[in-house]
Amino acid sequence: MASSLLTDLYELNMAASYLKRGMGGEATFSLFVRQLPPSRGFLVAAGLEPCLTFLEGFGLLEEDLDYLGRELAFEDDVLDALGALRFHGDVWAVPEGRIVYANEPLLEITAPIAVAQLVEPYLLNQITFQTTIASKAARCVVAAGGRDLVDFSLRRTQGLDAALAVARCTAMVGFVATSNVEAARRYGLRPAGTMAHSYVESFPSEIDAFRTFARDLPDRTTFLVDTYDTLNGVLTAIRVIQELELSGAIGVRLDSGDLLELSRRTRELLDQADLPGVRIFASGGLDEVEVDRLVQAGAPIDAFGVGTRVGVSADAPSLDSAYKLVEYDGLPMVKLSEDKATEPGRKQVFRGEDGDLVGLREEPVAADHEPLLVPVMLGGERTGPHRTLDTSRALFRRDLEGVAEQALRIEDPVAHEPRTSEALERLTQEARTRAFERAGLSDPRI
Amino acid sequence: MASSLLTDLYELNMAASYLKRGMGGEATFSLFVRQLPPSRGFLVAAGLEPCLTFLEGFGLLEEDLDYLGRELAFEDDVLDALGALRFHGDVWAVPEGRIVYANEPLLEITAPIAVAQLVEPYLLNQITFQTTIASKAARCVVAAGGRDLVDFSLRRTQGLDAALAVARCTAMVGFVATSNVEAARRYGLRPAGTMAHSYVESFPSEIDAFRTFARDLPDRTTFLVDTYDTLNGVLTAIRVIQELELSGAIGVRLDSGDLLELSRRTRELLDQADLPGVRIFASGGLDEVEVDRLVQAGAPIDAFGVGTRVGVSADAPSLDSAYKLVEYDGLPMVKLSEDKATEPGRKQVFRGEDGDLVGLREEPVAADHEPLLVPVMLGGERTGPHRTLDTSRALFRRDLEGVAEQALRIEDPVAHEPRTSEALERLTQEARTRAFERAGLSDPRI
Repeated sequence: MASSLLTDLYELNMAASYLKRGMGGEATFSLFVRQLPPSRGFLVAAGLEPCLTFLEGFGLLEEDLDYLGRELAFEDDVLDALGALRFHGDVWAVPEGRIVYANEPLLEITAPIAVAQLVEPYLLNQITFQTTIASKAARCVVAAGGRDLVDFSLRRTQGLDAALAVARCTAMVGFVATSNVEAARRYGLRPAGTMAHSYVESFPSEIDAFRTFARDLPDRTTFLVDTYDTLNGVLTAIRVIQELELSGAIGVRLDSGDLLELSRRTRELLDQADLPGVRIFASGGLDEVEVDRLVQAGAPIDAFGVGTRVGVSADAPSLDSAYKLVEYDGLPMVKLSEDKATEPGRKQVFRGEDGDLVGLREEPVAADHEPLLVPVMLGGERTGPHRTLDTSRALFRRDLEGVAEQALRIEDPVAHEPRTSEALERLTQEARTRAFERAGLSDPRI
Repeated sequence: MASSLLTDLYELNMAASYLKRGMGGEATFSLFVRQLPPSRGFLVAAGLEPCLTFLEGFGLLEEDLDYLGRELAFEDDVLDALGALRFHGDVWAVPEGRIVYANEPLLEITAPIAVAQLVEPYLLNQITFQTTIASKAARCVVAAGGRDLVDFSLRRTQGLDAALAVARCTAMVGFVATSNVEAARRYGLRPAGTMAHSYVESFPSEIDAFRTFARDLPDRTTFLVDTYDTLNGVLTAIRVIQELELSGAIGVRLDSGDLLELSRRTRELLDQADLPGVRIFASGGLDEVEVDRLVQAGAPIDAFGVGTRVGVSADAPSLDSAYKLVEYDGLPMVKLSEDKATEPGRKQVFRGEDGDLVGLREEPVAADHEPLLVPVMLGGERTGPHRTLDTSRALFRRDLEGVAEQALRIEDPVAHEPRTSEALERLTQEARTRAFERAGLSDPRI
């Protein structure tokens, strides 16, 4: 169970102030991504599941309150009030696996303002990070054009937590396996693995290593052929495959050098040896750009292992996400700051043939529009069908078919920009006017 | 306790093969960074502490073995042997907080090859990630030139685990506080925080919000002044400070707009109001480049809050780290692959006035040289003095004084390149020759 002190100090200070003043009004916060990174044409919503688990278990423990009293001088009455907080609110969200765009709420939470504020960092962290990874991995799936992808990122993600999430998010968009055994166990994924250079080195010769490994895993050996010399390694693998009459899931793995050229020559050697069923697996610093290049050039590679660059989303390791107050105590709210203005009210995203429309939740749904946000928690209880990784995978596959070609492009993708409904525009103008009045300023847009 | 299945499947397959063949020889693996990212002039070693905890607790549980037998068809005798594995080996490492460069081992582990192989992903993950963050944060410290830095990254790190590690690593290099309350509790750090825009918005007017918050935290309020209009917000803050006669740690926080211009005008307003003690706090997408620009331009900013870009090390979110077999069963080992050749043998880094020298561990230490790697675990037991964050902080501060100006530069830093000792060069040539013989190839370098 995650600690409910996984929050920022200011959230506690604000919550304390709200509780002291008896400000128990319901607040709605909206979590969205302001702008997509230049190299993203779409995002894949992810990270909801751990958020719901966190909200279900939310509550400060005795030891948490002791710490706040002892180290941060919170007063006893505030500690009592903080200690009583649980999450009994509502959450509407875009289910994991769905494709989304900038300014579309991924999650909206409605609860008394103190608790809605306290959970902000956790929700932002998980949704931002997992959406980052699922979106990066989805580009690999597009680039691979039906070839297999395997998650190899455990050793280079930003923490072990992150590695588990990466295995889960890559599976969500169609990776066929992960090297991470704990993740495979936890999420019911297929674990996959080959051998390391150190294994080959620990034997007197490459052929000794290959023979030994193949005897131990006769039906699923992938020979790592580049410890000494790649094509020589392929010939050694062929010799062992023939010698031991291996069959089943047998492959060779190329992990360095010019993968296009090496894969072609490896395929030739395998075909000459009458081993058409032996697969070629490629790895080594790959990402969607490199996978795309290899696939476009017709490299005879059957599967790609991707690690570091996908596991940290190297070109765009975070998203410009925000968690903004959009309604408080029945009133729509906005932020006015020049470069970070927000739109008020509880929202819905309506998806149709003509693209996405961001409007108010209360607006009627047109017959040819599908609402993306669904209630996933009401009164603190999960609602709706249980969502598995299979559900998310199916949602992703379906949504992907509807994505415009220019958004799918690996180089210079262009993202769809959702329109705003008239009702939302009207509400935004009203709320801005009121906010300027509060601030004693005039609206520069008028 | 972390699961010992946090490993890659191929490690288990290799371990199974080693155990089956009775290959219990001692292996030494060396963990190092091959090359620094272009925007790094130095690295700060970090991540050792969680590795030692993991090694101490290493061991597959009954449920882990059940999974391996049931889902992965590991045989009973192999499962028994895997289940008996514990870490009783030796670890030499560079203590956390020390400054290091490319090709310098950060950690060397010696243990029977099966277990040394199984722990690879965990060690690589933690050392790579935490060194990445400590190195990025260290550049912020250099850029801030004595001004305070606060970790604001919780909401945007790659997972919650990552957020805790970021708080720890930023503290290691001199950040004065973190917004992350759980991290503050866990590592004994100072928690810090201001207020959010949503707080200001939830009151009828900005001045109501400021008054309420200041009454609740009279001795440590930092007013967030950009919800409506920054300079107007500063005037409102001044009014409340004077009205309530606030003293103590009082500040205003600028979170958007032109921070150089706004900080100058804010300082003028505060000085005109005779409030020289009120501090200016800046935040909003900052990293070392932006902090450096502001400091160089003389912006009157007292403290910087840095979040996303440091918390994910946005410009270089991972390092080109490796965990390579350098000795097995008494024999020095190398990998020959063209682009990833390695050097054999147990190593030491000797630091002197004339820079770093990478040599063999057995080489004598010259009087004017300091060895960087120290034994931190022998026979599976921690050794040496208990190392706290304070120890690491002191090591970092001392090492930083010895870093060349060109490596400290924020733009286009040039990293020191350690030399290689003659003994290591000799051993490398011998091991390469033997490896080429094994592979039945001739060494292209001869």
